[in-house]
Amino acid sequence: MKVMIDICVVPLGVGVSVSEYVVECQRIFEAAELSHEMHAYGTNVEGEWDKVMAAVKACHEKMHEMGAPRCTSSMRLGTRVDREQTMRDKLDSVYNKMAI
Amino acid sequence: MKVMIDICVVPLGVGVSVSEYVVECQRIFEAAELSHEMHAYGTNVEGEWDKVMAAVKACHEKMHEMGAPRCTSSMRLGTRVDREQTMRDKLDSVYNKMAI
Amino acid sequence: MKVMIDICVVPLGVGVSVSEYVVECQRIFEAAELSHEMHAYGTNVEGEWDKVMAAVKACHEKMHEMGAPRCTSSMRLGTRVDREQTMRDKLDSVYNKMAI
Amino acid sequence: MKVMIDICVVPLGVGVSVSEYVVECQRIFEAAELSHEMHAYGTNVEGEWDKVMAAVKACHEKMHEMGAPRCTSSMRLGTRVDREQTMRDKLDSVYNKMAI
Repeated sequence: MKVMIDICVVPLGVGVSVSEYVVECQRIFEAAELSHEMHAYGTNVEGEWDKVMAAVKACHEKMHEMGAPRCTSSMRLGTRVDREQTMRDKLDSVYNKMAI
Repeated sequence: MKVMIDICVVPLGVGVSVSEYVVECQRIFEAAELSHEMHAYGTNVEGEWDKVMAAVKACHEKMHEMGAPRCTSSMRLGTRVDREQTMRDKLDSVYNKMAI
Repeated sequence: MKVMIDICVVPLGVGVSVSEYVVECQRIFEAAELSHEMHAYGTNVEGEWDKVMAAVKACHEKMHEMGAPRCTSSMRLGTRVDREQTMRDKLDSVYNKMAI
Repeated sequence: MKVMIDICVVPLGVGVSVSEYVVECQRIFEAAELSHEMHAYGTNVEGEWDKVMAAVKACHEKMHEMGAPRCTSSMRLGTRVDREQTMRDKLDSVYNKMAI
């Protein structure tokens, strides 16, 4: 089962700047060779469910290893069995309708 | 690593009533013997990361099996390494401060 | 238009304990006379859209006033126009199906 | 108070394709002259709190007007009082650290 997630990781107890934590999470998605795209309030990741979730777990483990005593993430998870649809397809579906 | 999640499952393409899908997800958390507590807009679940995430995957698989072509969930994930804290502890921490 | 939300407030830059911030948010929902119910990873609030959103804004303002330089909340927002449904109705709808 | 949100709107009871609803929400953000950026699983919007929230309300009203009996959105809300930070700044903050 494929999944598309949108995740925003939030380390707590490490001050207001969280960008270095976000950088490490990007590296984890990169290393896992998962299709991913960062935006200003989270990151889209797509791939096989188990592989994506293993990367999410690795992000939490990494943030704790970097010193965060507590982490809270918010995540959307989308699955569909009617057809394959990539992140690109979802965007195109909206862009095509906007162009009309 | 323990995790506490709050998940709201949303099957798409099955009409406006989603309660029978929510019922099946509760049964999955129950069968997995995970501590869980439903509220009006989601369910709290806590336990070992892998066990909790396996149950979340089972929820998506079950909803598709029940006929939903597409599912979108929103989820919060909390982990901490400074100390153990259950759902009950989190609530007590707030209630104790409210009583003052 | 009525709305039911589920909100989890997260003040950043104030350490790992956020319960005193959560307490103040409960007091805001209470003072606004909005039907609300806290759980271990957020709070359900229901009422007229403008009144609920004014309370959410007051929560963010209060957290900054208490010293949080930055706040990040995650929220679900549910509206329906087919019929009235309270938080209690949503729970009953699931419980009734579980009892069968 | 400025706010940056990330919102994913989900109309229920209208089938699996939600892109025409997303299109209308983009138009609402556009008409409100709010800085906004769509991604594959939501949209970032930033601006003054009241203006952003008025647009979010308009999205729900529009979806119901278009025929959705029920809508459920998931949203992140970020506010900060320590300094101004745009969506562009947040991304640059990560990109700069990744380049090192």
